[in-house]
Amino acid sequence: MSHHQVTAKLSALFMRRVSPRFFSAPVNRTSLDVSTTMLRPTFWVRNLSGLAPAGKPEEKKESSDVKQNNKAIVSSYWGISPSTVTNEDGSAWKWNCFRPWETYKADLSIDVKKHHNPVKFMDKFAYWTVQALKVPTTLFFQRRHMCHAMLLETVAAVPGMVGGMLLHFKSLRKFEQSGGWIKALLEEAENERMHLMTFLEIAQPQWYERAIVFAVQGVFFNAYFVAYLASPKLAHRIVGYLEEEAVISYTEFLKDLDNGTMENVPAPAIAIDYWRLPADSTLRDVVMVIRADEAHHRDLNHYASDIQCQGLELKEAPAPIGYH
Amino acid sequence: MSHHQVTAKLSALFMRRVSPRFFSAPVNRTSLDVSTTMLRPTFWVRNLSGLAPAGKPEEKKESSDVKQNNKAIVSSYWGISPSTVTNEDGSAWKWNCFRPWETYKADLSIDVKKHHNPVKFMDKFAYWTVQALKVPTTLFFQRRHMCHAMLLETVAAVPGMVGGMLLHFKSLRKFEQSGGWIKALLEEAENERMHLMTFLEIAQPQWYERAIVFAVQGVFFNAYFVAYLASPKLAHRIVGYLEEEAVISYTEFLKDLDNGTMENVPAPAIAIDYWRLPADSTLRDVVMVIRADEAHHRDLNHYASDIQCQGLELKEAPAPIGYH
Ligand SMILES: [Fe+2]
Ligand SMILES: [Fe+2]
Ligand SMILES: [Fe+2]
Ligand SMILES: [Fe+2]
Repeated sequence: MSHHQVTAKLSALFMRRVSPRFFSAPVNRTSLDVSTTMLRPTFWVRNLSGLAPAGKPEEKKESSDVKQNNKAIVSSYWGISPSTVTNEDGSAWKWNCFRPWETYKADLSIDVKKHHNPVKFMDKFAYWTVQALKVPTTLFFQRRHMCHAMLLETVAAVPGMVGGMLLHFKSLRKFEQSGGWIKALLEEAENERMHLMTFLEIAQPQWYERAIVFAVQGVFFNAYFVAYLASPKLAHRIVGYLEEEAVISYTEFLKDLDNGTMENVPAPAIAIDYWRLPADSTLRDVVMVIRADEAHHRDLNHYASDIQCQGLELKEAPAPIGYH
Repeated sequence: MSHHQVTAKLSALFMRRVSPRFFSAPVNRTSLDVSTTMLRPTFWVRNLSGLAPAGKPEEKKESSDVKQNNKAIVSSYWGISPSTVTNEDGSAWKWNCFRPWETYKADLSIDVKKHHNPVKFMDKFAYWTVQALKVPTTLFFQRRHMCHAMLLETVAAVPGMVGGMLLHFKSLRKFEQSGGWIKALLEEAENERMHLMTFLEIAQPQWYERAIVFAVQGVFFNAYFVAYLASPKLAHRIVGYLEEEAVISYTEFLKDLDNGTMENVPAPAIAIDYWRLPADSTLRDVVMVIRADEAHHRDLNHYASDIQCQGLELKEAPAPIGYH
């Protein structure tokens, strides 16, 4: 990345970190002069009153807009009442699955063709494993990009979770730090899951897709678990190559959107909120930001493998922050 | 929790969310008037210049203070250069294992004696399982609180990770949202790991403790994995009761600190930074905030069990945010 690109990426990161909370200091909400301090068009305010003890009628009215929670809230002896996060206009933040401060602006300045040249035996093994996996999937999906993307994402969200979990348990077992890699890998897994949630808003999986995912997840979870235990650097290299393929398949997706083979439908609301896209964004914009995410996963995983190929442990090189 | 307590907790949460980033807007760093806008004594500024392309001598000087990274940084073809997070005085943020925006002020207004009365068979089963586990551990550790705490925390960090992982895979497999519970459980696991990292700064584990942890982690991971697959509400109830016991054992710890049986050593640096404690804090202050965390885990897990005992799924009741 050039300096400019790093700065752009960082700005996006800053926006992500700063903005949602910039206006939610624990002071009187009405005292905030929103218009003069605003950094970007959309922002959120944490609603303190929404966390008052349950029972107030105005609170119920507010939370009734929350998407996954339009039923009565479980009464809690345990003092846990749901916090209400609101949009600028006072309407409820729609998503429980992600919060405003987890959203970000994707850095689209990626190198689409970046490739790790397999030289060592391990690299070649990783590369050809991925190429072998590619043959049946390409034959199966052909140009059915939505279906391909959906199944790809259910698989792509596995390695980050497995790697993060194993590093977490290693940290506990060996009584040692992890250099931030646990969080970096878990964030990657969550990012992949958000890709899936996005595609779900456009297409619903068929019964046989559900069956495939069920089987593939069982196999892939166990395979990756064993691979990560045996050789984390091989595991990260494989993911690096998988992500290279993900970039390629999303590039194909974009081609078919551009040549009209696929309809460029409006972007789903979840994508507009998660990647802070303009309200009139389309599927093409969504695929662009998802492809950028995949390129960053590619870089992160190849980097994680490189660290270990140089004889270091992951914890010796601090993990990048919010790198997706 | 009373309204006041909720507000106090929320304020702490706000501080946690707002402050680290309050001053790190993507504007010129020097233009920030820190003294007039400061909300609390310690804060951090993300150092943009630290993310410039590698090779600048001043960058190397900065990152050489980073604790886990005093060796040469792996050169990265992948465009990933480590970001340098700095303290107020421009010195490097010491920790790679956690970042300023993950720190928080603990809410100490907990109900130490809160207890879920086991009435149903499942609750009784969970309760007596924990009581049975308590007998050998109490006999083994007796009043060796540091040793007890260390081994307790290596076990306590398992359920959140297993539960979060299983919910993540369930979300992928079933193509459905999770209501924020994945993140809530993973945060709990990370919080427990930070407890362990804190105790590690005070005492180093013996070889037999390492051996015990190795064995216990293997058994407990698998047992909890199976329990969570079989009955998430039972699993959360068991954790609820485990956390009740954690609160009790930290109360014993505090008693022995107060009556002089144990020496009240200064708080380790990691604890001062993670819980934003005053610089002159002691072990007693650290145990106080850790006990508060355990009480919140207790509440969260009993609540998660309650939701499911009422016939709902977790995703139907949004997870609490930053609840530890
Ligand atoms: Fe993805
Ligand atoms: Fe990816
Ligand atoms: Fe703990
Ligand atoms: Fe706990």
